[in-house]
Amino acid sequence: MSQIIEQRLEGLGIFLQEAPVAVGNYVPCVIDGNLLFISGQVPIENGTVRFKGHLGKDVDVETGQQAARLCCINLLTQAKAALGDLDRIERLVRLGGFVAATPDFTDHAKVINGASDLMVEVFGDQGLHCRAAIGCSSLPLGSAVEVEALFHIKS
Amino acid sequence: MSQIIEQRLEGLGIFLQEAPVAVGNYVPCVIDGNLLFISGQVPIENGTVRFKGHLGKDVDVETGQQAARLCCINLLTQAKAALGDLDRIERLVRLGGFVAATPDFTDHAKVINGASDLMVEVFGDQGLHCRAAIGCSSLPLGSAVEVEALFHIKS
Amino acid sequence: MSQIIEQRLEGLGIFLQEAPVAVGNYVPCVIDGNLLFISGQVPIENGTVRFKGHLGKDVDVETGQQAARLCCINLLTQAKAALGDLDRIERLVRLGGFVAATPDFTDHAKVINGASDLMVEVFGDQGLHCRAAIGCSSLPLGSAVEVEALFHIKS
Repeated sequence: MSQIIEQRLEGLGIFLQEAPVAVGNYVPCVIDGNLLFISGQVPIENGTVRFKGHLGKDVDVETGQQAARLCCINLLTQAKAALGDLDRIERLVRLGGFVAATPDFTDHAKVINGASDLMVEVFGDQGLHCRAAIGCSSLPLGSAVEVEALFHIKS
Repeated sequence: MSQIIEQRLEGLGIFLQEAPVAVGNYVPCVIDGNLLFISGQVPIENGTVRFKGHLGKDVDVETGQQAARLCCINLLTQAKAALGDLDRIERLVRLGGFVAATPDFTDHAKVINGASDLMVEVFGDQGLHCRAAIGCSSLPLGSAVEVEALFHIKS
Repeated sequence: MSQIIEQRLEGLGIFLQEAPVAVGNYVPCVIDGNLLFISGQVPIENGTVRFKGHLGKDVDVETGQQAARLCCINLLTQAKAALGDLDRIERLVRLGGFVAATPDFTDHAKVINGASDLMVEVFGDQGLHCRAAIGCSSLPLGSAVEVEALFHIKS
């Protein structure tokens, strides 16, 4: 069977690398029945946080969207490591979007769209999801964005 | 069958209007088996955020409770749009309560009670729920409060 | 049947007391099928919040870890009150870790390890979990840390 989802990612120029290691005493993924929970991912690339700072101060909305997109890529990398094949995903259920933001920042939704857009691009209607986007005083390792995910996987 | 839950809402003077549109590339509700996930709702009324600002600064606890209550009404509006009939709800499982708050604010629980109280008023024991209430540096569109929900629906 | 998990806790010098009362109009636990949702717990001991303040300002990482550990003990206390016996837990699925933190704080993961480490110590491989750790502008009652949990329980 061809790997449809991963081919779509490659069509977007996204080649999944090795999954980032968890930065604490936890695991990146838990499968519970048909649910795949993925731990909050920060915008790490090649072992380094690529997007640091706060929206509303030293990170603009477009850069924040790139950070959210990288979090999303890391979520997919973790999903692939857990499932072997992303085609085992039936649908995305929920994203939790966390934005390191100043008190006067208001564009959290636009920032997290960097993750949501990629999910919809890759999974189509199966990528449409619920979500909560909020502003955080700070995030692990100084990250500008963090995103967690809940997928429904095929039986 | 009469619409018991919506009648109770109307008894409280709450008439559900059209569901607010999602402010990003996501959907308001996802049904996964018997679970209904609803995206974080902000205190929007007639297309405008009615309660802006931060608890501990320019929004007092009572106003914050009104904001949480409006978020709750928007959650129910979304649930009705997704289910057709609120009587299809078996119980509320969890609320996520997000309060735009200053560092020295401590009454997050009281604020989110504005949503919790309405849920219990409307659903009775079936409205008793788990919850996490936290303080956020800021919220989408400058909202003072955001609330997300997870319901269990009848088979 | 012997109470394996509670014996392990006692081996660590942890004796579960009476479960803290919810500080709002909600319940500490909801059982939905095989899932046990537990409301966000703050570092309360004997009715008082023992760890207050912000990481990065007036609470150091080690003290934050103690706060997270106390939140974890309170989660287990709630689980015991809901289940009667902690051996009914099949596995921990997810922790939500909330750290009251300044904008320049970066060690959220280390702080929440105070909860994660105890879960793994007590449940072994069944305690490995997903998690999201974020920084909050403030938390209920001035708490330094709040942790919520989702467990899978045996049928």
